[in-house]
Amino acid sequence: MSLENIAISAKKASYTLASLDEKTKNKALEAIAKALEANKEVIFEANQKDIEQGQKLLIEGKISEAILGRLKLDEPKLRDVIQGFYDVIKLPDPVNKSLSETELDKGLTLKKISCPIGVIGVIFESRPDVIPQIVALAIKSANAVILKGGSEALHTNEALIDVIKTTLESLETFPLGAINLIKTREDVKELLSMEKYVDLIIPRGGNALVKFIKENTKIPVLGHANGICHIYIEESADLKMATDICIDAKTQYPSACNAVETILINKEVKDSFIESLLESMQNAEITIKGDEKIQTLGTNIEPATEDDWKTEYSAKIVSIKIVNDIIEAIDHINEYGSGHTDCIITKDKFQAKIFMDLVDSAGVYHNASTRFADGFRYGLGAEVGISTNKTHARGPVGLEGLTIYKYKMFGNGQIVATYTGDKAKKFTHKKLV
Amino acid sequence: MSLENIAISAKKASYTLASLDEKTKNKALEAIAKALEANKEVIFEANQKDIEQGQKLLIEGKISEAILGRLKLDEPKLRDVIQGFYDVIKLPDPVNKSLSETELDKGLTLKKISCPIGVIGVIFESRPDVIPQIVALAIKSANAVILKGGSEALHTNEALIDVIKTTLESLETFPLGAINLIKTREDVKELLSMEKYVDLIIPRGGNALVKFIKENTKIPVLGHANGICHIYIEESADLKMATDICIDAKTQYPSACNAVETILINKEVKDSFIESLLESMQNAEITIKGDEKIQTLGTNIEPATEDDWKTEYSAKIVSIKIVNDIIEAIDHINEYGSGHTDCIITKDKFQAKIFMDLVDSAGVYHNASTRFADGFRYGLGAEVGISTNKTHARGPVGLEGLTIYKYKMFGNGQIVATYTGDKAKKFTHKKLV
Repeated sequence: MSLENIAISAKKASYTLASLDEKTKNKALEAIAKALEANKEVIFEANQKDIEQGQKLLIEGKISEAILGRLKLDEPKLRDVIQGFYDVIKLPDPVNKSLSETELDKGLTLKKISCPIGVIGVIFESRPDVIPQIVALAIKSANAVILKGGSEALHTNEALIDVIKTTLESLETFPLGAINLIKTREDVKELLSMEKYVDLIIPRGGNALVKFIKENTKIPVLGHANGICHIYIEESADLKMATDICIDAKTQYPSACNAVETILINKEVKDSFIESLLESMQNAEITIKGDEKIQTLGTNIEPATEDDWKTEYSAKIVSIKIVNDIIEAIDHINEYGSGHTDCIITKDKFQAKIFMDLVDSAGVYHNASTRFADGFRYGLGAEVGISTNKTHARGPVGLEGLTIYKYKMFGNGQIVATYTGDKAKKFTHKKLV
Repeated sequence: MSLENIAISAKKASYTLASLDEKTKNKALEAIAKALEANKEVIFEANQKDIEQGQKLLIEGKISEAILGRLKLDEPKLRDVIQGFYDVIKLPDPVNKSLSETELDKGLTLKKISCPIGVIGVIFESRPDVIPQIVALAIKSANAVILKGGSEALHTNEALIDVIKTTLESLETFPLGAINLIKTREDVKELLSMEKYVDLIIPRGGNALVKFIKENTKIPVLGHANGICHIYIEESADLKMATDICIDAKTQYPSACNAVETILINKEVKDSFIESLLESMQNAEITIKGDEKIQTLGTNIEPATEDDWKTEYSAKIVSIKIVNDIIEAIDHINEYGSGHTDCIITKDKFQAKIFMDLVDSAGVYHNASTRFADGFRYGLGAEVGISTNKTHARGPVGLEGLTIYKYKMFGNGQIVATYTGDKAKKFTHKKLV
């Protein structure tokens, strides 16, 4: 099938999906969970092929050890994947929720009802467990999806999609065309041009992938290219708290997008405090790059340049800068940050309020590690990704981010002429919900 | 000031705006309302210049009578504009609302708080009263705006912006750079390329303007290019109701985006019903284009072609088609419609439910004129425009559509390591709000 036909059939499927009730969707989720368990040998076999191919690519230097590691789909990983379906079943249905109801006049009622977005393109790298994850979220939110995974995982991806599609077809309640896998880079390019059929693109992968997608489509993109997170240490900060949070935010998972990259320290913070902080961080195997003052306070501090403020290290490296006041800290973050997650460490609630009001990021934290920025930790149940957009959805995005709303109006023959002109009838505009 | 500097200063202003409280914003709105009243002679004088220039352009055939009409800003129109400020003062503050609060663990609280989007570019045609309208909404929602009006209204626009900016400056609580006027087409092109500083573009104008903008920017665009609305008449429909609604939806304001363009009629509807409907519509001076069956049922019915199903007439013209069943009607609407507002006329609630679930439009109506699709009629208080987007905001957009949210986390030193691994502490994830 041509990509255009895939997109058209996904669009058609999306209309039908929107009318499915929660029970039908949960039944499908359960059926897929069972089918994945029943067909695990086929899936592992396909995965073995990808692994073998991956090992060759590793020897040829074409992929990294890390990518090969992420390729693996073994018994424990599949168990997590299957558990994921049961978790999503338990989440409340995000569609058909009444967001508000207004009586415009007696017998004329307007309801704002949540509904799926339509067709969502998800483009991700290597990890094949993304497929069942996204499928579970798509089914629960009643969106059609067009998936493109990394070519290294193609056999596994195909096996997974095969199990999922066969299950959905056997249910006969699901439109064919709800779930689609595309395979080549050319397909991705074409997908990005299909604004007529595709309503949202979610890239899950490194900066380069996300940037490429953002620059090559008119379809709304939900995601983040960079994760340049900051910690600002104010003069009243507790030394132990600051040290713990900085080390956690940098070392707990250094390549995560919510890891800290730059620490800003108020110039009133005591030298002894900073010296201790630097030493503790170096003991935690963190490489420090600092401005002139920081270099004088520690040993083995590399100089930080303008470029460092713009860098997501994705490693145990951090840049540190002294700032004159909270305003300089906020300006630095709004200038160099990526609007992801930024933290102030202070005992002063007023300083915290200023920081949290003025820093323009998806997450603004007072005395907590930036690493908390995550759908599971936020209690969203499941996560589509983290968005640094300023419209639609921001921060960790759960099922709600896969919905929009429509207005349903219930009348009995009302016309606008009645409510217009000299003898206009007045609207009641009574809030019902 | 260069456009880039305008955009940078708007971005900086947007951070400060976000921290203003409701009282400060309402005070500014009141001050502007009073200043507009106090400076009305200056505004009328500037408007007179535009009108005189417009009359020349009319004679030269460069603008239409309609555009010249919309240019006029007289005493009653200014009164409406000023009243608009007092109306917006009364609307609840859309920012700093707590959308949800979750206890992640004792002493670790996550709040999802509504906040402004940031910098919004608004591009509109001729009518100068759009400026104070948008400024009122921008101030209330704490967004910075960059406005571009029609060149025919430049004197009036400049006079209005002058009064507004002078007032805001005198208050000393508002950041300079919150309100900006740009003047040339080149400025618009540059604005559309400023995704670094501009978070949202709202075009208010004809199809050509909206299409041009959508095709020439990576910034999210909120609006609609087309308004191709449908009415589907099901076999159980009441003749009088169908006639009243069709005539209202077509004639009450034919050039509005929520006017009906195509009427679909179920093939089971009686010939006599259709004959009567056609006659009533023609008596209401509506030109009818119809398929073969419709042509045989009326007189002076022009043949409708494929092109008609894609046409927004913006005039007292309507196309009519017989469909085999509700599915054909829904398919037609999803194929040719613009996702704006579509109505079913029926006594059968089950048919209405199918239609309202499966038609993928911002508004789906049962037995009411499509002309109700409007922010004021919906009770939103004020309207930014009508969106046919599938993300962020859909249908008539009020103040809420000018906001997004940020997550504020309040901790006392929590780190993620505590909640990870074998001895992981569990999150409580207790919903507080």
